[in-house]
Amino acid sequence: MSSTFTMIGGEGPNSYRQHSKYQGALVEAAKEKINEAISTKLNIDLTSNNLANIADFGCSTGPNTFFAIQTILDAVENKYQQDIEFQVFFNDSSNNDFNSLFKTLPPTRKYFATGVPGSFFGRVLPRNTLHVGVSSFSIHFVSMIPKEFKNRDSPLWNKDIYCTGFSKKIEKLYLDQYKIDMEIFLNVRAQELMSSGLLLLLGGCLPNGVKMSETVNGMMTDIIGSSLSEIAKKGIIDQKRLDTFKLLVYFAQVDVLKQIIEDNGCFTIEVFEKISHANGEYPLDHEYLTLSFKATVGGSVASQFGQDAMEKTFELVKEKTQEMLPQIAKAKPGFQYLIVLRKN
Amino acid sequence: MSSTFTMIGGEGPNSYRQHSKYQGALVEAAKEKINEAISTKLNIDLTSNNLANIADFGCSTGPNTFFAIQTILDAVENKYQQDIEFQVFFNDSSNNDFNSLFKTLPPTRKYFATGVPGSFFGRVLPRNTLHVGVSSFSIHFVSMIPKEFKNRDSPLWNKDIYCTGFSKKIEKLYLDQYKIDMEIFLNVRAQELMSSGLLLLLGGCLPNGVKMSETVNGMMTDIIGSSLSEIAKKGIIDQKRLDTFKLLVYFAQVDVLKQIIEDNGCFTIEVFEKISHANGEYPLDHEYLTLSFKATVGGSVASQFGQDAMEKTFELVKEKTQEMLPQIAKAKPGFQYLIVLRKN
Repeated sequence: MSSTFTMIGGEGPNSYRQHSKYQGALVEAAKEKINEAISTKLNIDLTSNNLANIADFGCSTGPNTFFAIQTILDAVENKYQQDIEFQVFFNDSSNNDFNSLFKTLPPTRKYFATGVPGSFFGRVLPRNTLHVGVSSFSIHFVSMIPKEFKNRDSPLWNKDIYCTGFSKKIEKLYLDQYKIDMEIFLNVRAQELMSSGLLLLLGGCLPNGVKMSETVNGMMTDIIGSSLSEIAKKGIIDQKRLDTFKLLVYFAQVDVLKQIIEDNGCFTIEVFEKISHANGEYPLDHEYLTLSFKATVGGSVASQFGQDAMEKTFELVKEKTQEMLPQIAKAKPGFQYLIVLRKN
Repeated sequence: MSSTFTMIGGEGPNSYRQHSKYQGALVEAAKEKINEAISTKLNIDLTSNNLANIADFGCSTGPNTFFAIQTILDAVENKYQQDIEFQVFFNDSSNNDFNSLFKTLPPTRKYFATGVPGSFFGRVLPRNTLHVGVSSFSIHFVSMIPKEFKNRDSPLWNKDIYCTGFSKKIEKLYLDQYKIDMEIFLNVRAQELMSSGLLLLLGGCLPNGVKMSETVNGMMTDIIGSSLSEIAKKGIIDQKRLDTFKLLVYFAQVDVLKQIIEDNGCFTIEVFEKISHANGEYPLDHEYLTLSFKATVGGSVASQFGQDAMEKTFELVKEKTQEMLPQIAKAKPGFQYLIVLRKN
């Protein structure tokens, strides 16, 4: 039942690279706070071998990962003021386009770059070797679809692709899966991090009381779902396959996310802040919105239904998004966060 | 002037993967000696964090690298008999197909796999972090073509692709470059290895007194050179481009290689042995020989002259190799070695 989520890599017009500036803007906006957190909270002895290990979990193909890593590296260098060597571990699924990542590494980088293939819902680095980890826009994924949605005998079986807010029971099943996944994510990161190492989380979640369906993410998910349904009605994709297709996305509410981290107990929350920036989450532009979601979920659609069906789906998505712009303009804003966790 | 050498990766009929069993056979034949060397010569304290770092420099896309790594890993585990975690660094040029490598990692592996993009003629890992390094069939490359061969005003300028034995002056220029490169290779590996760490070198060189042109490698190089000349005469590739094209290959004689390592001084030679195995270097089969050299040097030809010209060249190579089989049968055997170096 498990499935892997991969961004569309590389340099093409639909690539993650071309449509990630709104994510990059979050790191930029959080830069000072990252600097401050590392300056005051990172408490690791680097004298034994002058080596700092930094990892990005869910790095995709760049360039945001390079910017996030450089921000952390500068902060560590600034704090320790000594001749440190840096080894950077770029982690993502083995389906990620590491070839593109490696070919676009900043030529002036001052670190040893390595790629680490494997799901971040499992150990990918040795015990007690990591000084600082970061994960940007990665912890709103679940590792698998709750199996009730794939079982046609279940009363919860439905044919729509998932959007929280449709039903409390569906929401609960996703939340249960999300809790399991976050527990694993935090446990394995705690094993990889050295004592007092820091884990930085950047991304988006829901403000308390806001439903997924009230946000741009929810509305776009619905548009993608209804577009897929139309494509199935036209016979371009198989309706039975669509029946069991869900996106592996779950946006928790702020207090829920905080509670999950506290309940896990491996980390102390040093920072949990809303980050505001001029760019906002998304521009009100149907072309941009379509390309953004094509970059992030197009890969899942293509791997399930083929490249051609994916392209046709997103042509429809663009039309529908244009029609929906007045409603999208009224969407409730999400909550973009910087969370800094210190390993206990 | 520098150029990068990349094997043809992936799964296709010309891929390195399909034609590497003769290299794999060398590791297999050397397995007992590798085990013995690690058992008796590796003297590293793993008690502090129970972590062993192993690297393959010039890993290509597998599967030989997986076999070499597993051989080393088993030997380390066998020696220390404790709960060790292994991190494996697969290094090759950033042009290497790491995506293929990552997708074919052994599913039952007991190590954390990482890819390290970058030329092994430079530092690719932090100081003092490596326990055991290995390099298979990689140190018969030079990092660049001596520039005298590209300068049309030089009395040494020649239009043939390189084969040692053509001229003592040419041989000397290649040897000079090889010494520079090996010096760098050994220096950077010595920086990456922990004190008393081991560097294992597997590959082929020339027996003392044997010229490159007397071996299968030399004969095949000549065949590739004359095929390229014919292709240029037909106007398929540009003669001027061919004039400055050389392979980045240099096979040193045994005593020369040994002397270079001794002169470098960073390592103690623990093992320097000829490894014999039933498969020999190459089978006397023109199809196999053609595919082998296509896998190893086809990438250089294609990157210089295009895929189509490369294919046409190797069609000619196959014909010429078939005609040359009686001479190839009389080729002098090369010297396949296991060298184990301990960092001083």
